[in-house]
Amino acid sequence: MYKEIKTIGVLTSGGDAPGMNAAVRAVVRTALSKGIKVIGIQRGYNGLLNGEVREMDLRSVSEIIHRGGTVLYTARCLEFVTAEGQKKGAEKCKELGIDAMVVIGGDGSFKGARALANLGIPCIGIPGTIDNDIACSEYTIGYDTAMNTAVEMIDKLRDTTQSHDRCSVVEVMGRNAGYIALNVGIATGALAILIPERPYDLDHDIISRMNQTQKTGKKHFIVIVAEGVGHAQELANEIQARTGIDSRATVLGHVQRGGSPTLRDRVTASQMGYHAVNLLEKGIYNRVVAVSADKIVDYDINVALSMHKTIDTMMLDVANTISI
Amino acid sequence: MYKEIKTIGVLTSGGDAPGMNAAVRAVVRTALSKGIKVIGIQRGYNGLLNGEVREMDLRSVSEIIHRGGTVLYTARCLEFVTAEGQKKGAEKCKELGIDAMVVIGGDGSFKGARALANLGIPCIGIPGTIDNDIACSEYTIGYDTAMNTAVEMIDKLRDTTQSHDRCSVVEVMGRNAGYIALNVGIATGALAILIPERPYDLDHDIISRMNQTQKTGKKHFIVIVAEGVGHAQELANEIQARTGIDSRATVLGHVQRGGSPTLRDRVTASQMGYHAVNLLEKGIYNRVVAVSADKIVDYDINVALSMHKTIDTMMLDVANTISI
Amino acid sequence: MYKEIKTIGVLTSGGDAPGMNAAVRAVVRTALSKGIKVIGIQRGYNGLLNGEVREMDLRSVSEIIHRGGTVLYTARCLEFVTAEGQKKGAEKCKELGIDAMVVIGGDGSFKGARALANLGIPCIGIPGTIDNDIACSEYTIGYDTAMNTAVEMIDKLRDTTQSHDRCSVVEVMGRNAGYIALNVGIATGALAILIPERPYDLDHDIISRMNQTQKTGKKHFIVIVAEGVGHAQELANEIQARTGIDSRATVLGHVQRGGSPTLRDRVTASQMGYHAVNLLEKGIYNRVVAVSADKIVDYDINVALSMHKTIDTMMLDVANTISI
Amino acid sequence: MYKEIKTIGVLTSGGDAPGMNAAVRAVVRTALSKGIKVIGIQRGYNGLLNGEVREMDLRSVSEIIHRGGTVLYTARCLEFVTAEGQKKGAEKCKELGIDAMVVIGGDGSFKGARALANLGIPCIGIPGTIDNDIACSEYTIGYDTAMNTAVEMIDKLRDTTQSHDRCSVVEVMGRNAGYIALNVGIATGALAILIPERPYDLDHDIISRMNQTQKTGKKHFIVIVAEGVGHAQELANEIQARTGIDSRATVLGHVQRGGSPTLRDRVTASQMGYHAVNLLEKGIYNRVVAVSADKIVDYDINVALSMHKTIDTMMLDVANTISI
Repeated sequence: MYKEIKTIGVLTSGGDAPGMNAAVRAVVRTALSKGIKVIGIQRGYNGLLNGEVREMDLRSVSEIIHRGGTVLYTARCLEFVTAEGQKKGAEKCKELGIDAMVVIGGDGSFKGARALANLGIPCIGIPGTIDNDIACSEYTIGYDTAMNTAVEMIDKLRDTTQSHDRCSVVEVMGRNAGYIALNVGIATGALAILIPERPYDLDHDIISRMNQTQKTGKKHFIVIVAEGVGHAQELANEIQARTGIDSRATVLGHVQRGGSPTLRDRVTASQMGYHAVNLLEKGIYNRVVAVSADKIVDYDINVALSMHKTIDTMMLDVANTISI
Repeated sequence: MYKEIKTIGVLTSGGDAPGMNAAVRAVVRTALSKGIKVIGIQRGYNGLLNGEVREMDLRSVSEIIHRGGTVLYTARCLEFVTAEGQKKGAEKCKELGIDAMVVIGGDGSFKGARALANLGIPCIGIPGTIDNDIACSEYTIGYDTAMNTAVEMIDKLRDTTQSHDRCSVVEVMGRNAGYIALNVGIATGALAILIPERPYDLDHDIISRMNQTQKTGKKHFIVIVAEGVGHAQELANEIQARTGIDSRATVLGHVQRGGSPTLRDRVTASQMGYHAVNLLEKGIYNRVVAVSADKIVDYDINVALSMHKTIDTMMLDVANTISI
Repeated sequence: MYKEIKTIGVLTSGGDAPGMNAAVRAVVRTALSKGIKVIGIQRGYNGLLNGEVREMDLRSVSEIIHRGGTVLYTARCLEFVTAEGQKKGAEKCKELGIDAMVVIGGDGSFKGARALANLGIPCIGIPGTIDNDIACSEYTIGYDTAMNTAVEMIDKLRDTTQSHDRCSVVEVMGRNAGYIALNVGIATGALAILIPERPYDLDHDIISRMNQTQKTGKKHFIVIVAEGVGHAQELANEIQARTGIDSRATVLGHVQRGGSPTLRDRVTASQMGYHAVNLLEKGIYNRVVAVSADKIVDYDINVALSMHKTIDTMMLDVANTISI
Repeated sequence: MYKEIKTIGVLTSGGDAPGMNAAVRAVVRTALSKGIKVIGIQRGYNGLLNGEVREMDLRSVSEIIHRGGTVLYTARCLEFVTAEGQKKGAEKCKELGIDAMVVIGGDGSFKGARALANLGIPCIGIPGTIDNDIACSEYTIGYDTAMNTAVEMIDKLRDTTQSHDRCSVVEVMGRNAGYIALNVGIATGALAILIPERPYDLDHDIISRMNQTQKTGKKHFIVIVAEGVGHAQELANEIQARTGIDSRATVLGHVQRGGSPTLRDRVTASQMGYHAVNLLEKGIYNRVVAVSADKIVDYDINVALSMHKTIDTMMLDVANTISI
């Protein structure tokens, strides 16, 4: 038998991601539709420790589904990494009457949630990060928007790259994962895509491809470099030295983290938030909501945190075949 | 044993869809990488009958991955619906030395492909339509772009709807299917979503929801109507008469068919084009490429044309719960 | 000698326009920087009559410069057209301690402001309307955004128009003025642009131009119709009947009224709001802020309301020469 | 009496700018409408020296008005800086039958044009550069698009800046001029705008403003730095050290040079191209087309190259007043 959930807390934690607002909105409204009270906690676990909270009603999440960022703000919280901080957090939950927590963020945020769970506060994690680097889920909130933003920026860069017969070396986000780079590289017709999951050979993967493609008449080039590979400027210098082609580096940067979420991020986030509260209502606790085979599913939080995800490097073969 | 494919023809047919160019590009370059010659056929089956063709090289598909529309143009072809036209088409293929065809389009286009297959021309279909109304595939090229375009337009409409405390009734595309409407409705926080797959009750689904939501402080509303339901203006009039809220109808129209494709459409189209040529190379004929459980798969063309797809009307429950 | 202004009221009235928020923000912050109190009046003159007001501080206009619509909401107010309503409005101003009013809107809104002025409430008008139909000013807030939105939509429409060898007849906004149509027509390379300021001849201006252009190889066409001309569908039918070219009508509609304002609208609105308060501070009353020769100027409100503006129909000659 | 112009050459030179294609299109079509032949020269003066030319017809400039970059490509040409190179260029013009040149670019490009003029090849310059740093003209082709692109990117950055309570220091383009920075700063509500035309004081212009604004409740900040000021990363470090607010630098980079041109760039470029050919037709030579008081005008090329333009630093006062 499980305790009935009368009040849930919801927070966003770690790096922000477009679509987090849609998830918050879905959590709030699904809970209210079931008679569950919702407390919004601001600035992640910091706000929990500091009591930066407010009760959410239907209208408190109006006009946010199309907004980037997170209306609950976010922050990293060093104190919450400690056992002390976690204990204080659990006590705060009790003090605030929070029966269960919904945590929207990445692996680090889920570890915090697990700590709360171990201290008796039921938790549900929702994967929110542009980097798609959460092992249990094929898809994370913000991923689609970040990639489309990168693509739009590179489409603009392409104009000037082409007008000047240049090579543009573009660093995209993704932390230690190449998901964004791989997809963005295919979508922008990049001659080469460098990701941390696969070592590259400058001669074979870039220089000789450029030479070969130049012979067919191509004069401008895009090379995508994942954040986890980095060194875009050095690479541009090297390419220019080796090929004589004017080469420029661009680091797309934090612009990729913002902006109005795409349909996919809004819809997936809405479904995830809805699913999270349904789990809690059914007394199913300590799960991470995820996408598997394009469906919304959930995993035990311990299992989720121990899973591994590999990149489909066969996609690189697709890219190598068609971006030439 | 199968005949070796030395030359393939590729065409786009039916309504155009953003991402078709990425598919054409992938077909051309994958084929060329395998030493297969590619003949681009313009304006669908019309161009086949009229000999409107040109050989494609690597550079003929440069700088098109980010462009809406189709560089091969498209058209509906009445002649090709007849047995006579189909026979003429098969003869034209032989005359042009086309050993196999890749047809990018919808169900109608695939029926044409099947007719060619029955006349000895191996075919592969690639699902390209914004409406997502191809039964064998979870996803069709152009669907994501069309939905995001609709969302962006409705986000703009929301500004003026809100400033004036109005109700906007918005008709989105989708032919006889509600896929676009359902997703766009969730993504824009529409109070009500009317789709052809589920009858609606004006009182229950719209008027009483509006009244109920008004009591919580909401003063402006978005109602999404699928093309297959239609009558946006009448509905707006009815809503205004019943609620007193100034109501306006907007038909988003053909704008939804164009524009630079999203990352998802570009990547999926690239994978599908790559997969199509790989099938032909392996002597696997008369298949439709599809997405199932988020993977690229393929079905026998007869099976594909006999499949049925249902809409996930549970999504309406998600919408009803959170868009209030 | 003039009365010192200690408190100003600000409202937006008439149709909303992107950039109105930037104007409100500039009015509020410029006033506060001078120690003048600001009262925000919601829903135009209605809010004045109903006392729908709130005091504005620096943070009350944060995070709105990039938002479409108006945070003060807007409405048409029938009561305020009457002498009675105006008298009540002036009394309300005195009751609320409002020493002067800043009214952001179109000619109708300025007439209301003049009525208040005649009743002893000093007023400044700021031209805000997407239609650019305010005689005293070369430029009105919202005009640039609306035109760019129309251009972006027509760019998408162009893709599908081109893929299908069609003619798209597109109605753009502008009420009785052709400013939007003329500029959008040039920017989208429209074969013909129909504006209310100049009668057109179907044969000469459209049909024969289409025939002539077709001979040079062009197969798809865009025709722009101003709202004040209308009848896009009838025109499309007529063109199709006369030329045999598949022709479709699209009414871009209210989408053109919304969306994040362009740089030009944000900057101009900021300058206008700043200028308006500076006038009041200097005791210069009953003026309309305007753009003349690309500079921010101001006119007496009676003069402003009696001015006439003509469209530069020579622009049509530019269009006729280069869009062929 | 003047020589009749039968053939003109057109080239784009220096950095590319969105809208250059609209200018090329207008030059080509206006000339053809007057029976003047047009030779398109690729890659700037390089293409002139190398004979990289092609005759342009009506359809050669179809479907380019909405495209960023330049279909004529561009390049810097060291050889053309020398008297020798210029002489060779003038000879090439005669060899190709070019009676007059239209040069789209910046001051450097106009100097090349003047050299040709001095060698007997009549020239017209059209100001094309995103930086707006051409003294004779209030407006240069590409300026509006570059600024709007910067604004859109900063709007996205704002989301994540706000979610994390950060300060974003953003470097925008503009070479040695602060035009882009000043306008973009106002349009994005930047707390501080650093331009090369006016020295800044870190304490007064940034730190104390941040402290003052924080007291009113603001927690996130945008600081705009012009390219001519630079050092965004150092500034971010300094701000963080002085205020304790997490500060990040972003260099928007070459993305600002590309993308589909805005309406303003398309329309102005079209008018300028039209005007340029009209001048040549009337035998008016060696002029630079410009915008003055929002009208299309022209200046003698020597006068144009000796003019000076100052930035309206009063705009900084507007910014300082309202972005707080």
